[in-house]
Amino acid sequence: MSILESKYKAVRTMTRSLAANLSAEDQMVQSCPEASPVKWHQAHTTWFFETFILRPFLPGYRPFRDEFHRLFNSYYISLGEKISAKKLRAAFSRPTLNEILAFRAHVDQEMERLFSCSIDQEVARRILLGLNHEQQHQELGLTDIKHAFFSNPIGPSYGSAPMPKERTHPAYQLRWFDFEGGLTGIGYPLNAGDPLDFCFDNETPRHKVYLEPFQIASCMVTCRDYLEFMSDDGYIRPELWLSDGWDSVQQAGWEAPLYWERDSTDATGWRVFTLKGWHGLAGLLDTALCHVSFFEADAFARWRGCRLPTEAEWESAAIKERRHGNLLDTGRLHPTRANGAGLEQLFGDCWEWTASPHTGYPGYKPLPGALGEYNGKFMSSQMIVRGGSCVTPADHIRATYRNFIHPAMRWQFTGIRLAI
Amino acid sequence: MSILESKYKAVRTMTRSLAANLSAEDQMVQSCPEASPVKWHQAHTTWFFETFILRPFLPGYRPFRDEFHRLFNSYYISLGEKISAKKLRAAFSRPTLNEILAFRAHVDQEMERLFSCSIDQEVARRILLGLNHEQQHQELGLTDIKHAFFSNPIGPSYGSAPMPKERTHPAYQLRWFDFEGGLTGIGYPLNAGDPLDFCFDNETPRHKVYLEPFQIASCMVTCRDYLEFMSDDGYIRPELWLSDGWDSVQQAGWEAPLYWERDSTDATGWRVFTLKGWHGLAGLLDTALCHVSFFEADAFARWRGCRLPTEAEWESAAIKERRHGNLLDTGRLHPTRANGAGLEQLFGDCWEWTASPHTGYPGYKPLPGALGEYNGKFMSSQMIVRGGSCVTPADHIRATYRNFIHPAMRWQFTGIRLAI
Amino acid sequence: MSILESKYKAVRTMTRSLAANLSAEDQMVQSCPEASPVKWHQAHTTWFFETFILRPFLPGYRPFRDEFHRLFNSYYISLGEKISAKKLRAAFSRPTLNEILAFRAHVDQEMERLFSCSIDQEVARRILLGLNHEQQHQELGLTDIKHAFFSNPIGPSYGSAPMPKERTHPAYQLRWFDFEGGLTGIGYPLNAGDPLDFCFDNETPRHKVYLEPFQIASCMVTCRDYLEFMSDDGYIRPELWLSDGWDSVQQAGWEAPLYWERDSTDATGWRVFTLKGWHGLAGLLDTALCHVSFFEADAFARWRGCRLPTEAEWESAAIKERRHGNLLDTGRLHPTRANGAGLEQLFGDCWEWTASPHTGYPGYKPLPGALGEYNGKFMSSQMIVRGGSCVTPADHIRATYRNFIHPAMRWQFTGIRLAI
Amino acid sequence: MSILESKYKAVRTMTRSLAANLSAEDQMVQSCPEASPVKWHQAHTTWFFETFILRPFLPGYRPFRDEFHRLFNSYYISLGEKISAKKLRAAFSRPTLNEILAFRAHVDQEMERLFSCSIDQEVARRILLGLNHEQQHQELGLTDIKHAFFSNPIGPSYGSAPMPKERTHPAYQLRWFDFEGGLTGIGYPLNAGDPLDFCFDNETPRHKVYLEPFQIASCMVTCRDYLEFMSDDGYIRPELWLSDGWDSVQQAGWEAPLYWERDSTDATGWRVFTLKGWHGLAGLLDTALCHVSFFEADAFARWRGCRLPTEAEWESAAIKERRHGNLLDTGRLHPTRANGAGLEQLFGDCWEWTASPHTGYPGYKPLPGALGEYNGKFMSSQMIVRGGSCVTPADHIRATYRNFIHPAMRWQFTGIRLAI
Repeated sequence: MSILESKYKAVRTMTRSLAANLSAEDQMVQSCPEASPVKWHQAHTTWFFETFILRPFLPGYRPFRDEFHRLFNSYYISLGEKISAKKLRAAFSRPTLNEILAFRAHVDQEMERLFSCSIDQEVARRILLGLNHEQQHQELGLTDIKHAFFSNPIGPSYGSAPMPKERTHPAYQLRWFDFEGGLTGIGYPLNAGDPLDFCFDNETPRHKVYLEPFQIASCMVTCRDYLEFMSDDGYIRPELWLSDGWDSVQQAGWEAPLYWERDSTDATGWRVFTLKGWHGLAGLLDTALCHVSFFEADAFARWRGCRLPTEAEWESAAIKERRHGNLLDTGRLHPTRANGAGLEQLFGDCWEWTASPHTGYPGYKPLPGALGEYNGKFMSSQMIVRGGSCVTPADHIRATYRNFIHPAMRWQFTGIRLAI
Repeated sequence: MSILESKYKAVRTMTRSLAANLSAEDQMVQSCPEASPVKWHQAHTTWFFETFILRPFLPGYRPFRDEFHRLFNSYYISLGEKISAKKLRAAFSRPTLNEILAFRAHVDQEMERLFSCSIDQEVARRILLGLNHEQQHQELGLTDIKHAFFSNPIGPSYGSAPMPKERTHPAYQLRWFDFEGGLTGIGYPLNAGDPLDFCFDNETPRHKVYLEPFQIASCMVTCRDYLEFMSDDGYIRPELWLSDGWDSVQQAGWEAPLYWERDSTDATGWRVFTLKGWHGLAGLLDTALCHVSFFEADAFARWRGCRLPTEAEWESAAIKERRHGNLLDTGRLHPTRANGAGLEQLFGDCWEWTASPHTGYPGYKPLPGALGEYNGKFMSSQMIVRGGSCVTPADHIRATYRNFIHPAMRWQFTGIRLAI
Repeated sequence: MSILESKYKAVRTMTRSLAANLSAEDQMVQSCPEASPVKWHQAHTTWFFETFILRPFLPGYRPFRDEFHRLFNSYYISLGEKISAKKLRAAFSRPTLNEILAFRAHVDQEMERLFSCSIDQEVARRILLGLNHEQQHQELGLTDIKHAFFSNPIGPSYGSAPMPKERTHPAYQLRWFDFEGGLTGIGYPLNAGDPLDFCFDNETPRHKVYLEPFQIASCMVTCRDYLEFMSDDGYIRPELWLSDGWDSVQQAGWEAPLYWERDSTDATGWRVFTLKGWHGLAGLLDTALCHVSFFEADAFARWRGCRLPTEAEWESAAIKERRHGNLLDTGRLHPTRANGAGLEQLFGDCWEWTASPHTGYPGYKPLPGALGEYNGKFMSSQMIVRGGSCVTPADHIRATYRNFIHPAMRWQFTGIRLAI
Repeated sequence: MSILESKYKAVRTMTRSLAANLSAEDQMVQSCPEASPVKWHQAHTTWFFETFILRPFLPGYRPFRDEFHRLFNSYYISLGEKISAKKLRAAFSRPTLNEILAFRAHVDQEMERLFSCSIDQEVARRILLGLNHEQQHQELGLTDIKHAFFSNPIGPSYGSAPMPKERTHPAYQLRWFDFEGGLTGIGYPLNAGDPLDFCFDNETPRHKVYLEPFQIASCMVTCRDYLEFMSDDGYIRPELWLSDGWDSVQQAGWEAPLYWERDSTDATGWRVFTLKGWHGLAGLLDTALCHVSFFEADAFARWRGCRLPTEAEWESAAIKERRHGNLLDTGRLHPTRANGAGLEQLFGDCWEWTASPHTGYPGYKPLPGALGEYNGKFMSSQMIVRGGSCVTPADHIRATYRNFIHPAMRWQFTGIRLAI
């Protein structure tokens, strides 16, 4: 079996296994406009392989069901009719989960047939893209089910494994790491030789940027740090906020991160919803703060007399670090604490808000055709986040990876690293 | 077994049987704000018996699960916390359908225990109310699942029985029935002797009204009639509409009844969604028009040079007629056609919009306590509809029955009878 | 000069005199969607005479300016293009006030020419309608400018006359007046002989209604009464409210009547905005409560164990009373107190909410053509108010007069009379 | 008289003179949420001098009227209570225009007294800021009154001077200017010696950026160019648009630039609203396109196979050019055409959308205190525009000037220059 085929099997199996804890009913929930039902994630990722690989490249391929082409399109406007599909995720009792699983099996079987043929470079490139796409939806599926369970009045937990106890160890001290700046390169250097070599189009072209000297924090902001900000009236002092941020605070009534709820039985007065149910905040004080918007990250940094790093600063700091951390593969599914060892938590725990809006790198060109609708058309009003989170697959993230989120969004696993 | 217990069993069994065609996923869908998931209907009707009968009246009753008390409250504000339950119907994957069915079984078993004791008048009255409440939710469940299936891009059908072919018989002629008016009584005359005697509080007190002479149509307006209105630019002539109605037309973009969609393959240019899937309008032209708002009913009547009857006129015309028609028990689940025999279609087919807003009869008093929140608090901005529809249980309707609906709503089975 | 011409001059002069206190800038303000600028009221009432009388009936009439025909239409859809005019009231700096005043002068001059000819019955009827229309806009102008001044941060007052001191006299006692009900007639009996005889179409036809015996309060609910309701948690007890009313309370955050503001310097803790500026509530406690919605009136009545009268009850009680009271002509421009003398305050002070929705009387027919758009198309979702207010011209009101307002509106001078 | 005092007088006089064409009523209009009434602009700019200069620095200064401090604050949250002021611009009939003009006179007189004293550096700095602030509001006032007159159904024109005829001369050819990129400096180099030296805080610090080689167009995109885009279905091809841009097109129903309206009497089928009234597009085909959003600019560039320049590219191209063009001082008040002479139209005509979001330069620090709320808090979700427009005062613009606008806004004078 080729490396690519192994990877295909591993990713596809992972998706099913992540959904295994969830009933057909759970997989139908869409609890906020930015989320999608898990059943839809399972179908849409399969649709990608059918649409972009099997239909055009596998001779004799017969689509599983004709209407699925239209149903499971998400945003590829070039392919037409996305609107209806988007609207109807909420009324999405049919096709049933069983039909979706049959669709997955059909496509997997046909992909096996495809792998048995010789695969040209374009097909291989598309398969890699399809797998990275599916990994993104693995993360989104967990992100969305967290919101769904939070919205449910019973507050169910995902999976039965209990939340691991946080280690207690000598307190660490936040340290500042110095970087001297200067002319440096950022962006992904494509490596033609490696069959699994991959990056998204928005990570290219690699190019030069000039950086002033800067300092970056050794670890992420903790819940304890953030409680201080809250106690210091962080949410009611307009001078700490960007204008749009202050509007969000007023309109949405923010007074704490998403998933925090007042709880008089906890020493801190708060409890936190996790994928493993509700937990008192007292037991999580030193873990990385999560589920804050860019606006909150920015206000916190200003309050601290610091700022958020730019994405170029972040990347030039991270590029030399080992790509490991509290990612999906640890199974924690919640941010953990730093341990005081160097420049840490760059990968995993939480996506880190940067001060950089999502724009194209100099000379940026999207992929041709419908596949080009992946990143380029989201280059306005979104902010770059870096480093992956505790629900990002470990082999999906890298130092050059550019994820982007609207600045008022909080349902993704997003946190803060400071810079000066 | 007492008459009351038999009725209890029959009604409860009917609910389960109506839901039997639907998957757990189907029973979760809420496709518009005015609808509820079928799973919720099953739970809420059971909650009624637990809350108002078993908890207060059955010694030793143990609630099935504590949080259900809060979860399945719909609008009884006196019982507290309705808001959260209402909001969360959409994220309602847990409790699962299986848990709801176990809840139903638990309550049925305990009700059996209650029936084995002697039942006083107050308990009997509440059981009757609970059964009539459950019958209302049987109708709502079918109404809501119709909208859910319509909203689903695949357009599934409820049940597998095909739509019965409409009879062809000599054309009938709409006739006008004369009533001389004068001082007459309306409202329900309670009959203390009958153990199944029941009406809702808004049907009382029986009282006198003075009516001018009037005429009422022998049958309901048909799809054919309504197509004429549409062809005569009914939807674009503001002078035909109430001011609020015209606003609705503009804002919602109405150009046909709900569930009509353009279809160039049908001779009429339209197809109609039914509980048995899509049907060409050509085959339904002489059936009673359905799924129009009060505003459309009113505009149609004005266009015809007629008007809608008041509820007092309707009731005084219907009171002497036999209570039968195309109700839920026929299994058609769609309005049918008149056959030219007298004053017909008063019961079943479609609820008939009247010109009367929902107000309290002179001397009206709601039931005491939470049960009093049933009708009285909806006495503003709603219009009275009369006569039941093809999804109303046959033993649930009567001539004095006052149902009420917001004038812009179309998802219920509502149609038109003209008066002069 | 004919009686009609005298009346014409009196009404037209009154409009100008009511606007005389207001600058061109004041006359441009539209501070809520239901209000209109005073400049627009001045133009629209003039447009009525030009459109419905001078253009069709005065030979050789030359319209003042062509575009005014379209600009100053309010809602006569049959005349086309109302939308744009409505939208643009806010950007309405041109035509300037001076141009509007010239328009008024032009129309008055041409009307004088018309009066010098012989006037047939249809023209006379239209003139009377135009004058009653203008009197309605006199009331609306004062109602709207009150809201405009309230919205202005400086809180200017209309006119310079101070608020008259309320009389102090022996406390009166609310009494109940008994009516025996039975078959009675309501509606306006047109009197063909009288040249100034007038009613609106919705007051006809006169017809019979059957009334149960009822009791009606001798005077209106006072601010003191309403403070008690507020102190007894009236605004936070859902069981007191209609369902739509409770929604309004929640959404709009009502906690007092419109124009009440907390004021720690007043003994009651409140101050009230009037057309003569801010006044402490302490000095107004025994005056009639004003600026409450139907929902508040209904909740108050329920809290008191009473109800609102129906419009038929109100009319049959008022028909024998003398038509006088605290109307516009007293110049108070604010409700005053009862003095304990019989059934009082029926006319003036505040419009009195009834329990009756606005519907057509049996056999009701609107006027033909565009003039028929006056009342008939507002026969849904509005409640009848009766009796006029302190800003209603004295010769404009009568016992059969049916005004109608959306049940959540509070910017008009609306108050409460109880019934049992 | 000092240079600073001369400048003060010149700027303040200009404001009054720009408003001289407008009636008190015109100066009250606020026709869209992003606009403000001209009367308010006159008051707010005066408030700036009172608040930041006279109150703190002129001994014995007596504020004109106490409540003006609160009324004419726009967004300086640190000074409190901005909300009410913002909301009430619409009900803003009082203070009257005459009172505002008296306020201006009072402040000017007191400023004269201040100038007669010795002025320290901080005061001088604040005066310069106040004057630049007032110049920004001169531009905004004209921008807002254009929208107000456009919204008025009569479509008045500002001033009486006719639109100058566009020169006809040999057609010019768009040319591309090459820049080699590399490491370069951008941002304003403060010049301590010059008393009128000024820049906004967001233009600093001057810093290095690395640019790839690029090409920039010799002139702006014309109306003729844009008509081609429209004819080629530019507004209905989603693949040309950013995702947020496409949403704007759908929601707002854009099918042409703001101020274009269909007009079958013009050869192009369109007419254009200008500060001098309506003009057929045919006569303006070669003038610079104006009143497009960033989204339209971006879509147009993509359609042309080009892109928008970054702000660093724009600045490095403009820094060597002479600062002149069709600015406010020409009196045209509308964009004109290029004449084929080199790299032109950089200054004036229209603000040029860049591909750069508004962020802080490396090391950026806002001014301390309330004055720091000027630019820094708008550093999210806005795009940089460069070069000024035909309503920007000539001595207000410079190559380093960074203006910023929400990407969907069109009411400012914004156009397009292409880059490759």
